[in-house]
Amino acid sequence: MAYKCSLERMSDKIKTFAQYGDAGHGGITRYSLSEASTQAREEFVRRMTAIGAKIECDDVACMYATLEGSDPNAKRIVMASHVDSVKNGGNYDGIEGVMTGMEVLETVAEQKIPHRHPLTAMIWTNEEGSLYPPAMMCSGIICHDYLPADLAKNFEYDNMMKAEPMDESPFKNFGEALAASKWKGDKANRLSPDKYLCMFETHLEQGPILEDNGNEVGAVQLVMGMFNYRVRFHGFTAHAGTFPMAKRHDALYAASAFLVKMHEEFDKIEQGIDPEFVYTTGEIYVHPCIHTCINDEAEFSLDVRHPDPAVRERVMAKLKEMAAQEWCGCTCDIEEQWVRDTVNFNKHLIGYVEESMDELGLKWQKILSGAGHDAQFCAYVIPTTMIFSRTQKGLSHCEDEHVSDEDATAAASACLNAVLKADARFEDDLAKD
Amino acid sequence: MAYKCSLERMSDKIKTFAQYGDAGHGGITRYSLSEASTQAREEFVRRMTAIGAKIECDDVACMYATLEGSDPNAKRIVMASHVDSVKNGGNYDGIEGVMTGMEVLETVAEQKIPHRHPLTAMIWTNEEGSLYPPAMMCSGIICHDYLPADLAKNFEYDNMMKAEPMDESPFKNFGEALAASKWKGDKANRLSPDKYLCMFETHLEQGPILEDNGNEVGAVQLVMGMFNYRVRFHGFTAHAGTFPMAKRHDALYAASAFLVKMHEEFDKIEQGIDPEFVYTTGEIYVHPCIHTCINDEAEFSLDVRHPDPAVRERVMAKLKEMAAQEWCGCTCDIEEQWVRDTVNFNKHLIGYVEESMDELGLKWQKILSGAGHDAQFCAYVIPTTMIFSRTQKGLSHCEDEHVSDEDATAAASACLNAVLKADARFEDDLAKD
Repeated sequence: MAYKCSLERMSDKIKTFAQYGDAGHGGITRYSLSEASTQAREEFVRRMTAIGAKIECDDVACMYATLEGSDPNAKRIVMASHVDSVKNGGNYDGIEGVMTGMEVLETVAEQKIPHRHPLTAMIWTNEEGSLYPPAMMCSGIICHDYLPADLAKNFEYDNMMKAEPMDESPFKNFGEALAASKWKGDKANRLSPDKYLCMFETHLEQGPILEDNGNEVGAVQLVMGMFNYRVRFHGFTAHAGTFPMAKRHDALYAASAFLVKMHEEFDKIEQGIDPEFVYTTGEIYVHPCIHTCINDEAEFSLDVRHPDPAVRERVMAKLKEMAAQEWCGCTCDIEEQWVRDTVNFNKHLIGYVEESMDELGLKWQKILSGAGHDAQFCAYVIPTTMIFSRTQKGLSHCEDEHVSDEDATAAASACLNAVLKADARFEDDLAKD
Repeated sequence: MAYKCSLERMSDKIKTFAQYGDAGHGGITRYSLSEASTQAREEFVRRMTAIGAKIECDDVACMYATLEGSDPNAKRIVMASHVDSVKNGGNYDGIEGVMTGMEVLETVAEQKIPHRHPLTAMIWTNEEGSLYPPAMMCSGIICHDYLPADLAKNFEYDNMMKAEPMDESPFKNFGEALAASKWKGDKANRLSPDKYLCMFETHLEQGPILEDNGNEVGAVQLVMGMFNYRVRFHGFTAHAGTFPMAKRHDALYAASAFLVKMHEEFDKIEQGIDPEFVYTTGEIYVHPCIHTCINDEAEFSLDVRHPDPAVRERVMAKLKEMAAQEWCGCTCDIEEQWVRDTVNFNKHLIGYVEESMDELGLKWQKILSGAGHDAQFCAYVIPTTMIFSRTQKGLSHCEDEHVSDEDATAAASACLNAVLKADARFEDDLAKD
């Protein structure tokens, strides 16, 4: 028999949390460690202490609300996401996963559902990094020692404390904001493999796939590997009025020609084979960027994501082949910014999620995560998986971001039952591997 | 017989003026009304008073050094350009024309060349507008009442005084810098048609045409008309990792596809017919310009120059036709920033320049100006023309900008003889029209 979370209680949480950082037109701005964030954390404390959960904070202000289980020696099962948002973000990204953890604990408490392991609802600090970059800062810090070296180097504690604000802030860096925060606690409280058995993160999909397929929830299999490059063009600047067309080496023209051809070529590699192949040119800069000058420099960012490293390699080979050519009289070079391997989630945890969705009669599918989440760092520390909920129109990181109360509750129910299956079977299933 | 200017004296001026604002690596930064600019103006005063010229300043600090002629009632013939530079500019743009005026007066004084009209060497204030925009500010102010209304509206005196610095400055706007300047004089001293007969401006070409054709100097026929537009694309933003390629409306992809196609189409209109057709996409901006986001907005500037309004109209028609289409799922719109008619120089003055170049045995050609100059505003007030000198590699607005001492002296000799022809014949030639 599958347990169900409460639509009424979930709806109330969604309404309530939308007030903290309310930007006045449907969405929120709730930077990490801000006043709005503190309001959300206080609400978390109120609701969790009301059901008898014990509250702890670690040294980077991550919060843990724990309901004891029947076995005092068992490790905790944790459900975690974040309460901070991007500027003018929506009411779901991050907070939905925190509300899910709370809802699971509230349902367990209300229905007195037996469980052996302690169950923890957790808040990761500063996932968005929208005031103090980088994104996933505190999962990066906490998981630091378990991450591959080239990832870990981006999350050194001392450097993170020096992260400067990108928008108005009363603090000169993240370290000062943290020191002034009432949520800074003890390093001993950090999520760690000796105290935590496994992690579930529920999150809105942030894309249109579930909606397009008529599904309510998704069982996330992995976070896609990616590479991020800068593609640069070097030409020659001259005056817009005095320099004949035939002699120009226009870097923006070169970048445009490259970009158009790149779409043609990349679409040949993967078209119709793998809809999970995505690539994006999000930033572009030119120099001198003056309307009366031909640009001598142009560069754009290229973000390529695919779960299969062999496909990423084919894309990279094409990119290198193109970069070796001359474009509109300009040379081209490319520079790696970062590369991340695909992070596969734990097969048992994925199985519990899928079983639970079936038992609940939900419309669901296997799905991949194209975006990054704290879960992908946590997966290096303890077994981890994610649940996606249907996102209206695929919108995210904007005020129109929306998940229906019903879909959020369905995802919470799936999480609850998956957690209970992990509580009952995970150690045995691991032992059988 | 053609008079010749002094290579030795011209070389000395080039060396001397290169010290004022010397940036330490071959070029200068000499913002208008700066200390460096004052040094150049003091040198101008020293050299001009040494030959008995009378110095005047007008209310926007334009400077006039005048050698009297034999007819006390004759109007002045003026040779003018500017002493200010762009940031990290070269040793020729602007100052070459001022040095030419000085060299002509010095030659006339030294060789005691008879002339009926007073001859004036002039400095226009703030041509580059690189500290206090806009460019051609003070010719805009002084010529204001003679300019077409849509040009004049950009140069209202009161607005110009409020122009704020684009770089470090001890003053909060141009008006304050002017008030503090020892060069601010009397409005009655402004260049005006009742006191000035005609104007010559000598300037480096800033392009490679003279050099490519093996010519030393050019007789400028006109300043090309132009239009400047913004071309904008409107798509849909979404997350780089979560949004399938097929559903995207990527504004940067649209802008790139448009830009590439525009080159194809524009080159069909004019290719091989008219080498003076130039078009430039100097600025590009995208929103949100984040490497993990698809851009929902992209815009670039489009600067189109051609002497013939009929050609500009054909280009505009093609632009409008393209803008009416959909580009990579994005809509497009265009917005006019400004349009300037072609400014034709005075045919008699052009004739004197061409005759002089022939008589001096110079290698010369007719040439068009693609860039803007104070001369193009002045042409609305009094008959005006320009002389171009050969620019090495077409470089300008950079520290490598270079004109050989010989070429600069050749241009000055051409100017001297043209001025003397105007002195002798211009009023008669005008009367015959």
